[in-house]
Amino acid sequence: MSKYWNERVQKLEPYVPGEQPKDQNYIKLNTNENPYPPSPKALEAMRDCLDARLRLYPDPNASDLRQAIATYYDVPVDTVFVGNGSDEVLAFAFMTFFSPKRQVAFADITYSFYKVYANLCSLDPRSIPLDDAFQIPVDAFCETSGGVVLPNPNAPTGRGLPIDVLRKIIEADPDRVVVIDEAYINFGGTSAVSLVKDYPNLLVVQTLSKFAALAGIRVGFAIGQPELIDGLNRLKNSLNSYTLDRVALAGAQAAVEDFAYSEEMARRVIATRERVSAELREAGFDVLPSESNFIFISHPEHDAEQLFRNLKARGILVRYFNQPRISDHLRVSIGTDAEMDAFLKVTKELIREDR
Amino acid sequence: MSKYWNERVQKLEPYVPGEQPKDQNYIKLNTNENPYPPSPKALEAMRDCLDARLRLYPDPNASDLRQAIATYYDVPVDTVFVGNGSDEVLAFAFMTFFSPKRQVAFADITYSFYKVYANLCSLDPRSIPLDDAFQIPVDAFCETSGGVVLPNPNAPTGRGLPIDVLRKIIEADPDRVVVIDEAYINFGGTSAVSLVKDYPNLLVVQTLSKFAALAGIRVGFAIGQPELIDGLNRLKNSLNSYTLDRVALAGAQAAVEDFAYSEEMARRVIATRERVSAELREAGFDVLPSESNFIFISHPEHDAEQLFRNLKARGILVRYFNQPRISDHLRVSIGTDAEMDAFLKVTKELIREDR
Repeated sequence: MSKYWNERVQKLEPYVPGEQPKDQNYIKLNTNENPYPPSPKALEAMRDCLDARLRLYPDPNASDLRQAIATYYDVPVDTVFVGNGSDEVLAFAFMTFFSPKRQVAFADITYSFYKVYANLCSLDPRSIPLDDAFQIPVDAFCETSGGVVLPNPNAPTGRGLPIDVLRKIIEADPDRVVVIDEAYINFGGTSAVSLVKDYPNLLVVQTLSKFAALAGIRVGFAIGQPELIDGLNRLKNSLNSYTLDRVALAGAQAAVEDFAYSEEMARRVIATRERVSAELREAGFDVLPSESNFIFISHPEHDAEQLFRNLKARGILVRYFNQPRISDHLRVSIGTDAEMDAFLKVTKELIREDR
Repeated sequence: MSKYWNERVQKLEPYVPGEQPKDQNYIKLNTNENPYPPSPKALEAMRDCLDARLRLYPDPNASDLRQAIATYYDVPVDTVFVGNGSDEVLAFAFMTFFSPKRQVAFADITYSFYKVYANLCSLDPRSIPLDDAFQIPVDAFCETSGGVVLPNPNAPTGRGLPIDVLRKIIEADPDRVVVIDEAYINFGGTSAVSLVKDYPNLLVVQTLSKFAALAGIRVGFAIGQPELIDGLNRLKNSLNSYTLDRVALAGAQAAVEDFAYSEEMARRVIATRERVSAELREAGFDVLPSESNFIFISHPEHDAEQLFRNLKARGILVRYFNQPRISDHLRVSIGTDAEMDAFLKVTKELIREDR
C-alpha cells in the first residue's frame, strides 16, 4: 500500500496470469495457447511492415483489420471493434456498459478476470453458482441485472452453451448489455455473432490468441450493433488512441483473411482433445465435455494440487486453481499429439506411483 | 448517446488524434513523428521473432525491455514500468495516482489528452494559465493540489523547463504525485530521471514514438520509485496483463540498446529545427524557442487556419488547433531537410500571395 495510490487502486486485486517460464524446457499446457504455429501468411504480412514506416503512427481506426473481420463474419464494418487482446476489449466493455449502481452477473466459476474488472470499475458483481455439473442455471441469468458476462465455452470448465440458451438470456432483459466472451469458440462451439443483428444489447468478444495462434501479438475484437461499438470507441479514445501497432494490425488482418488455415489447425486440436479425453477417462479421470482447446479434469483418488506439482517436476506445466469448488481439478491445454502423449504417459505413471 | 453507455461514458469527450492519411502523398508534419527511420537493430530484432513462437503469450513483466531501459538510465529495474505507448502509461498514471476528491493541476495550453484522462477518471482538473510567452507560472504549480502533470518540453509550444523549476514544484508538496511527461525530452531538454531517486512523488514518462522513431509499435515507459511503479502494475494487471506484444518488446529492447543511433538522429532533427526557425523568423514569423521535434509558429499578418488549409491543399500537413489563445498558431513537426525546404518554399509563396 502507498499513500500515493488512490482509493480504487488500494482496493484492487489484480489478475495473476498463468506462468510464462522463460526457458522453453517445459511442455506448456497451462495457458491455452495453440500448439500449432500461426498462419504463414500472417508472419509474411508482419515481415513486410518491418521498415522505415514504423516511424509513423498506425491507423487509429484499424480500418483494414476491421474490414477483414467484417468480411469473415459477413457483418457491417461499423459493428466491429478491435483492441489489444480480448482482455483489453473486455475491460473496455466493463468500463463502458456497466454501472456501479446495478449488479453485473457472472458465474462463480469462470474466467477470473471478470471479478478483477468489476473491482477496477467499482462494480457490484453478482456471483451466480454453476450447478454441480458446472452448467449455468439459466433462469438465474435471466433475472434482471445491470449486465451479464458469459464465456462460451466457459473457462476453466470448457463447457459450451447452446445458442437458444443465450438467446433466452439476451431477450430476458433488453435494457442490459450481455457480453458473450468467445475466446475459445472455434474449438467446437457455436458463435453468437449471428445474433448480433437481432439484439442491440449483445456484444460478442473474440481473440486471435487461441484460434489464430497469435497470443504473442495481442489482438482481440468485439462484434455488436454500432451503438455498442461507438461506446467502446469513446472509451478507447479517452484512454489510448492507438492500441494496436502496425505489425499487429498487419499480422492480424492476414490471419483473419486466412482463417481457413486456423480452422484446419482447430480440427487437429479437437481430434487430439477427444483422443486424450477418452484415454484419461479410461485411466479413471473425470473429464468434463469440452468445446474448447483445454480439458478440465479430476480424479476421485488423486489430489489435484499434488498432481500439478508432480507434473511440473517432470517438466509439464498445467493450471491448478486453488479456489473453492475446483481445487480438485486441473485445467490442461491441448498440445500437439506428441506433447499430449508425453502428458498421458507421465500422468499415468504418477497416479500409479501414488497408489 | 445510448442507454447502454454508463454515466461516465455518456460524458466523455474523447481525444482526436492528428490525421493519419492513408495515401503517403503528403509531406506529413502534423503528428511529430521522427523523419528518420528507427534503428536497423530494432528492425532486425523484430524480424527475428516472427516465427512459431508468436503462438505463445509475451512476458507479462516485460523484464528484458525494462532491464534495457534501467541500464540506459542507470536506475534499478524495479523503477521501470512499460506500456502500450506513453498515452497508455499516462492514462494508467491518472487512474492510479489521482483522486476525484482533489484537483489535478495542468496548464491551460498543453497536451490535450490530459483533460480527456481527467474526464475519464471523473477528476476535477485545475487549469493553470500559461503566461503570454507560454511559460508556466511556477508559483501556481507549487500550490497544494491532488497532483500535477507537466510535459517537458510542453506541447504544442515546445518550451522546455529547467530542472530547478521542476525540483521546486516536486518539493512544494511531497504528498502529491508529479508526472513529468517527457515525450520530447531527447530533442534538447534535460530529463528529470536523475531526480527520481530523491523524490518518491515523481513519475517521469517517456515514449519510443518520437526519439526512437517507433510510433508504429506503441511503446512508452515510466520511471519512478517502486512505490509508484507497483501502483501502476496493480492497475495494469487489473485491466490487461499483456499490454506489449512479443514483436514490440523485442523491437523496443533493441532500440533502447541502440539509443546512440537515436541520439545521432535527434542531433540532425535539432540542426534542421534551428535552421528552419531562423528562416521562418526572417520571413516574419514568430517562432517560439523549441526543445522538441516541432516548432510553434505564428505570423502577425497571416491567418493561421488559412495557412493550414493552403498548406494542406499544396500537400503539406501541419497541425492547427482551433482553441482559445493558440488559434493564431501552427505546430509544425520537423521533417527531413528536404521536407522542410519544401515546407519553407511553399510557406513563403503562400504568404507572398496573401499580401
